[in-house]
Amino acid sequence: MAADVLVVGTGLIGASLGLALRAGADVVLADASPDALEHAVRRGAGRRWDGAERARVAVVCTPVPVVAAELARLQTAACARTYTHVASVQGPVQRAAERAGCAVETLCGGHPMAGRERGGPGAAAADLFSGRTWVLCPAPGTRREAVRDVTEVVEAVGATPVTRGVEEHDAAVALVSHLPQVAASALAARLLDGDAAAVALAGPGLQDSTRLAGSDPDLWRDVLRLNAGNVAPLVRALGDELRGVADALDDGDRLEHVVDLLRRGRQGRERVPVKRGERGAAFGGVAVSVPDRPGQLAALLTTAAQAGVNVEDVRVDHVPGTPRGVIELSVRADARRRAAQALRAGGWDVLAGDELSAR
Amino acid sequence: MAADVLVVGTGLIGASLGLALRAGADVVLADASPDALEHAVRRGAGRRWDGAERARVAVVCTPVPVVAAELARLQTAACARTYTHVASVQGPVQRAAERAGCAVETLCGGHPMAGRERGGPGAAAADLFSGRTWVLCPAPGTRREAVRDVTEVVEAVGATPVTRGVEEHDAAVALVSHLPQVAASALAARLLDGDAAAVALAGPGLQDSTRLAGSDPDLWRDVLRLNAGNVAPLVRALGDELRGVADALDDGDRLEHVVDLLRRGRQGRERVPVKRGERGAAFGGVAVSVPDRPGQLAALLTTAAQAGVNVEDVRVDHVPGTPRGVIELSVRADARRRAAQALRAGGWDVLAGDELSAR
Repeated sequence: MAADVLVVGTGLIGASLGLALRAGADVVLADASPDALEHAVRRGAGRRWDGAERARVAVVCTPVPVVAAELARLQTAACARTYTHVASVQGPVQRAAERAGCAVETLCGGHPMAGRERGGPGAAAADLFSGRTWVLCPAPGTRREAVRDVTEVVEAVGATPVTRGVEEHDAAVALVSHLPQVAASALAARLLDGDAAAVALAGPGLQDSTRLAGSDPDLWRDVLRLNAGNVAPLVRALGDELRGVADALDDGDRLEHVVDLLRRGRQGRERVPVKRGERGAAFGGVAVSVPDRPGQLAALLTTAAQAGVNVEDVRVDHVPGTPRGVIELSVRADARRRAAQALRAGGWDVLAGDELSAR
Repeated sequence: MAADVLVVGTGLIGASLGLALRAGADVVLADASPDALEHAVRRGAGRRWDGAERARVAVVCTPVPVVAAELARLQTAACARTYTHVASVQGPVQRAAERAGCAVETLCGGHPMAGRERGGPGAAAADLFSGRTWVLCPAPGTRREAVRDVTEVVEAVGATPVTRGVEEHDAAVALVSHLPQVAASALAARLLDGDAAAVALAGPGLQDSTRLAGSDPDLWRDVLRLNAGNVAPLVRALGDELRGVADALDDGDRLEHVVDLLRRGRQGRERVPVKRGERGAAFGGVAVSVPDRPGQLAALLTTAAQAGVNVEDVRVDHVPGTPRGVIELSVRADARRRAAQALRAGGWDVLAGDELSAR
């Protein structure tokens, strides 16, 4: 019997793909590392591939340098109808695959714009791709059936497929992914020069802005090497911009240059897409103050369920130093007023305020 | 009757302070903006200050340029026993306060290492300071009673007080807060040069690394101006580092320089403190697959409550394109196995896997 999807490489992306697909698809898994494979199988990402069973789509989720060879090997063994991969750089991988003898007709490159700084199947999550963009890079010779097969996988995991040429993809990710990686690493590297007492003061802003610096240097070495032509000019421009800011800070009369950068940064930040559904206008929060003891959350949600309110998400704040907490329920915006009324009627201490923290 | 705490300035920090204190303290609020004050009062951050009532501690949470004048005004009116503020730059504010005639005996500067890129009382959260560091900067002449009063407020909101000299504070925040702000703004400003189709591909990494760029340029203008002497050399060093990376990327033979930066970045990242309790070893996750319909979360938590399991936090994953979801309950690590067993015994589909996503 044929499987729906063969995932080769069960690291973060491969194992998350299996988890995301598992509810509606038969997924088989392979990995050069028996431990990684075992871990992914135990997490429920799919069944072990026997090395022969055919799949509709084979997805290569290995490190970038071996993607092309893996695609060629799978195609030679006719393991699937359609072949794709998830490499962060598309042009060089497509060219390497063609050099390795891959048939372009059944090959459609792809790249999910999702990830985490931690790797491996242990970091996998079923919702990793949910609401994210997944770039498809069909070659001119790629058959329509292959694009359709990959699109189905992408949509099944809740991602939004968008089509780009390989060069267009590589230029775009240089800006939105590879430059931020280098910037985060360079910022985090500065911390090595600070004394521990200084770094100990860091708040959540530094956590966010250095998160990418936790990424695997060996994986990124290959990505940056293969996309150096696009990345280098962007890194240089960022470096120049920062030196300009340093000069302006030194010269008290040119503070407006710094303010201009802050303003442009805010404008640029507004262009960064937000995950579909995340902080969207479609959802609203209802905050309730509760005693912080077992069962309160269950009782609160029971009240909501009895009122027919579907709770989309829950955030629990423990009010420090007190035996109380705040629970914020995320509900559809059009159900928010009704939810608040139902909870108040049920005796809950619904907090006032027309705007909640919306985190 | 005297209040416990007078909060002057009910923006993000002031309103969050009121929310965090409200369970155990009598908080009075003041703000030059009637709208901001009204909003904070309605959110439950405290009662309106009548302009005369005395408080044990007055906390000035206004923008940096007016902190010193506000402290002087409050001291002249003898509004409190102890005075503090939350300015991001301590040395210049302390000196300005002394120039404005403030008595140092009752003044103890402070700075919570917490914040969000959104401002205003609408963004306030009761847990903003929970687990965060709050730097106290007493002057040599500050009375011990004043330090104790401020420490009590800090501890009441769940923050950890640490003491630093004003100059030491200002040098440290230049590294862990002001440099990251400039870096995030510069990175986000680069996005203005990319076309919209490129920026549309951005994933969560760019969200994180540009989050600070959403901050208010007018607030940051003053902070960077007042701390320019500390910030400028750090910004210049970061700019130089990036230019070195650009050169190494251009020169294919020097890729090891880039890898070295990635490695140093990872080491630096490891020095960034994590919020106390957050992702800590003290908590573990139990993941359950459930039909995605009203009442499942309530029923699940009822099972947990009946088994005596205290659920610390909840994360809901909607498995895209399927009528199922995954709910991850965060429980104390020592209760994890028992929680999983109790939920399985209650008929729930507890997911296998020895490591969960730990988000």
